[in-house]
Amino acid sequence: MKLVVGSPGTWSGMALRVSQFVFAGASMCAMVTAPSNSNYSAFFYMNFTMGLQLFWSLGLACVDIFSIRNKKDLHNWEIVSLIVFGDWIMSVFAFSGVCASASLMILFAKDMNFCRIYWRLPCDQFALSITLASIVWSLDAASSLSGFWLLVSFF
Amino acid sequence: MKLVVGSPGTWSGMALRVSQFVFAGASMCAMVTAPSNSNYSAFFYMNFTMGLQLFWSLGLACVDIFSIRNKKDLHNWEIVSLIVFGDWIMSVFAFSGVCASASLMILFAKDMNFCRIYWRLPCDQFALSITLASIVWSLDAASSLSGFWLLVSFF
Repeated sequence: MKLVVGSPGTWSGMALRVSQFVFAGASMCAMVTAPSNSNYSAFFYMNFTMGLQLFWSLGLACVDIFSIRNKKDLHNWEIVSLIVFGDWIMSVFAFSGVCASASLMILFAKDMNFCRIYWRLPCDQFALSITLASIVWSLDAASSLSGFWLLVSFF
Repeated sequence: MKLVVGSPGTWSGMALRVSQFVFAGASMCAMVTAPSNSNYSAFFYMNFTMGLQLFWSLGLACVDIFSIRNKKDLHNWEIVSLIVFGDWIMSVFAFSGVCASASLMILFAKDMNFCRIYWRLPCDQFALSITLASIVWSLDAASSLSGFWLLVSFF
């Protein structure tokens, strides 16, 4: 079994999955508890992608724990390519959600000054949620990159 | 020289570059001629990425024409990997620009009904520009995919 940092079935891989899960959960909490978040499609979409991320990361964290406990080698071509493909899809979802929400946030905070005019708009919570989601995206990118590196090393 | 559709130095590759150039130019025209477009950061950002795209596609179209006229083989590892890397960066830029602008457009047209309330807001022009930019993105993805396929076939 090749030791690529962050690849499936390793301690570092599990740590990445758990961090993705925690940050995605925190991002969802920050967004859900913000009043009037449901009025904006972009925020709803980002929340939806974070929900998907939650299930994906939890599932793969469980797979990693199972693999480490039972010393099962997950490093074969089919499993890794499936995980890399899934990670890639998740990264694209998370990236699009973050871009969409960040553009709305810039509109509210800078272009239209809504954050200053409508002081009841929870801009800080929106910004926190977007920041956490962008951390999730970078962790996703790290996972999919290390998986891809492992995939390349098979050939 | 391997014949991969859309790869550098082929007729299909040149057609892809010319289409990217034309659609990026059309997207910029639609956005620049829309009044009040400069008030929104997301639209400005998308316009900027389309400007970059214009230079990139024009440059590579010239390279393709040069290669076809002089029957020069561009299919070596260094050149293709450089072009694929550049295409990938351009795709990410275009995708983020399209996501950011599309989320603003959804806010204007659906969430806040600005398009109906402020009839002077050129929503149709914004939508047209975003649609054209998303076509540019899909053409970018096609270019970078065919280049990547060629790169894989070297190994």
